[in-house]
Amino acid sequence: MTDYRRLRVALLGAGAVGSQVAALLLKHGDELADRAGATLELAGIAVRNIDAPRDADLPRELFTTDADTLIVGADIVIELMGGIEPARANILQAINSGADIVTANKALLATHGPELFDAADQVGASVYYEAAAAGAIPIIRPLRDSLAGDRVQRIMGIVNGTTNYILDRMDTEGAEFLDVLADAQALGFAEADPTADVEGYDAAQKAAILASLAFHTTVPLDAVYREGITKIDKAMMDAARHAGYVIKLLAVCERLIAADGGAEAISVRVYPALVPRDHPLASVHGANNAVFVQAEAAGDLMFYGAGAGGVQTASAVLGDVVSAARRHIAGGVGVGESTRANLPVMPIGHVVTRYQITLEVADQPGVLATVAGILSDGRVSIATLEQTVSGEEAAVARLVIGTHKAKEQDLSETVDRLADSGVVERVVSVLRVEGD
Amino acid sequence: MTDYRRLRVALLGAGAVGSQVAALLLKHGDELADRAGATLELAGIAVRNIDAPRDADLPRELFTTDADTLIVGADIVIELMGGIEPARANILQAINSGADIVTANKALLATHGPELFDAADQVGASVYYEAAAAGAIPIIRPLRDSLAGDRVQRIMGIVNGTTNYILDRMDTEGAEFLDVLADAQALGFAEADPTADVEGYDAAQKAAILASLAFHTTVPLDAVYREGITKIDKAMMDAARHAGYVIKLLAVCERLIAADGGAEAISVRVYPALVPRDHPLASVHGANNAVFVQAEAAGDLMFYGAGAGGVQTASAVLGDVVSAARRHIAGGVGVGESTRANLPVMPIGHVVTRYQITLEVADQPGVLATVAGILSDGRVSIATLEQTVSGEEAAVARLVIGTHKAKEQDLSETVDRLADSGVVERVVSVLRVEGD
Repeated sequence: MTDYRRLRVALLGAGAVGSQVAALLLKHGDELADRAGATLELAGIAVRNIDAPRDADLPRELFTTDADTLIVGADIVIELMGGIEPARANILQAINSGADIVTANKALLATHGPELFDAADQVGASVYYEAAAAGAIPIIRPLRDSLAGDRVQRIMGIVNGTTNYILDRMDTEGAEFLDVLADAQALGFAEADPTADVEGYDAAQKAAILASLAFHTTVPLDAVYREGITKIDKAMMDAARHAGYVIKLLAVCERLIAADGGAEAISVRVYPALVPRDHPLASVHGANNAVFVQAEAAGDLMFYGAGAGGVQTASAVLGDVVSAARRHIAGGVGVGESTRANLPVMPIGHVVTRYQITLEVADQPGVLATVAGILSDGRVSIATLEQTVSGEEAAVARLVIGTHKAKEQDLSETVDRLADSGVVERVVSVLRVEGD
Repeated sequence: MTDYRRLRVALLGAGAVGSQVAALLLKHGDELADRAGATLELAGIAVRNIDAPRDADLPRELFTTDADTLIVGADIVIELMGGIEPARANILQAINSGADIVTANKALLATHGPELFDAADQVGASVYYEAAAAGAIPIIRPLRDSLAGDRVQRIMGIVNGTTNYILDRMDTEGAEFLDVLADAQALGFAEADPTADVEGYDAAQKAAILASLAFHTTVPLDAVYREGITKIDKAMMDAARHAGYVIKLLAVCERLIAADGGAEAISVRVYPALVPRDHPLASVHGANNAVFVQAEAAGDLMFYGAGAGGVQTASAVLGDVVSAARRHIAGGVGVGESTRANLPVMPIGHVVTRYQITLEVADQPGVLATVAGILSDGRVSIATLEQTVSGEEAAVARLVIGTHKAKEQDLSETVDRLADSGVVERVVSVLRVEGD
């Protein structure tokens, strides 16, 4: 066996991902050394509770509750604790003591990324985070490096496995949201408190990370528009299917080019959207993730795989560990983040998409004319219109209106005016259409 | 504008890809500088004939026929000439004069890769080749870096756009191979001499590159088993569709694990195979490419996009140029290729797959028993069997036999014995089944 330089690796956290990372580091040590050109010595694993149950059988002597001491002298620090503190403080300590960082902490990166990247730049360290955006799917390096010479126009990503699992089952089984959620919780696909997933917070963090990379711009988390999937019901799913769509929770990162050739801007948003059945994203089933990228030169690209899972995510973490080790051996300073484009992030009101508006209206003469007039006054142009009456004796009809592309602000004001018009009994749903 | 360090970029070749690379370097110079942290100065473009027509409008003063002089003093040399010489000599000269290399030359990498990588290692230079394996699809970095901590078990790739275009049209239109080929040539999807594509040579080069990366092993081109698509006819396509498959030209790179837990080996092969209709690769249409990767920890991943095209491939080349520039600025030596696993490449005879054998047999009693006996004697186990008679008066029946997994060598000897058995009029086709 080759006698390689030894690199000390400190692992912070031994949850679902951390315990798999430790297990694989120990199991495949010789292979990883050959690939990295360095022996990766797992110096220790810092946890809050040494006696907590783990997903993998790991030597007890590796565990410590003292992260600060473990970090001292580490060449590579893997942070898999999650949350903001103490992860942030530990990473800053590690950077300042000369370590490269590997993290899967999307919440931390989406909120404190620039602070960490700046600290790393100061000392020439690197921060690797392939596991932070779409689990096992290699998407960070493609955006950061492979597409660095291109201009990304648009990303549409299914980046949250829990919500895709729920929406997929609602679509294929005709089930209701709460029933599938309960089942997903029982099966371990959803957390006991599902808020971060179903309200789109997790997807918004990933969208901020992807948009920052794609547009070479620091995208603060609070600039990401976000809607969850809790309002999606069986009726909306059925209507979507009827119209040739499937509802997916999408992270959309888009380059906006002013019609007058003016300054560029970007939009970053997360919401449930209608996706045409023949779009590649429509066939992403279960808890899988996929990221669809449109670039000026490369055209359409798609990256597909497992978006979560302990061992799957561990794959991405270990890829980063090998990269960090190779860089350590090669020398030179770390390559910082590319954020010099510094494009403004536009609020949701400026976004232009197609919409599908479902209304319950009084089934009487003149209603259609009134609705059409309000849309036209609001600069919302009708592309398709379907009217159905609920039953023979019903006094209420259902109108499904597909619009041409409209500005979100115009659309939203128009929907308010429709709601107050006297002829609309209820705005059943307003969904954006993406990918057509 | 930031005052960046200037890096001299020399471009060798201005064909479909090269002219787009030059055009994009000039058009997006400021943006690329911001991303690279260095100004990329296109020092010149070496071509054989300065007056040849180009796909892009480029300043005439950039052109030269003197590649040797252009290379001197270049920080980054982009080789897009194709072919072995003078590309090889120029790259070696560039490496030895201190440049990093960006190339899309799959033929050169598949035959002389180790020589180039060794030369680069000697001086601490880097060789980038994202565009060499699947056009615009980022697949090199995912394999080289993102999956460096995982164990790739299997790659199945549609890596040749021309053959996918032909097979897709044969499948969807029921057309014959030669008719679609002629049309593809007229439309520019196939070369006047289509041998490199339709005989699988191009795919074999890419398979060698992908397998080298995936298995950390130098895979010589002549260790890649190769069959082209020229024998695929309408009848085989129809039969495949009838059985729930589509025929795709696949590059298969596989880790073989000995049943007795013995030493590992790999297999690298290119051939037309039956792919189940519900496999993600089955829905790769037109001239698109896709690479399906199965890894021990990450599970199933897929990378999809344009496999060829001047501007699409230019995207991958420019991503490499930005990476090379970033490394130049960051300092340190280049990270060499990871080939220390050094796994043996097994000949095709050792490969185990399922097969579909189509025979024309005499329509008389006892034939089935004879055929079944020969298969059984040859250690080929029957999974499905369908018999059809061509017409009421036909004395010849058609047998379609789906096998369980069998060793290629056993299968091939068994097919020979069937052909000589006296009851088989004709072996219509023997196709491997992949992805089920």
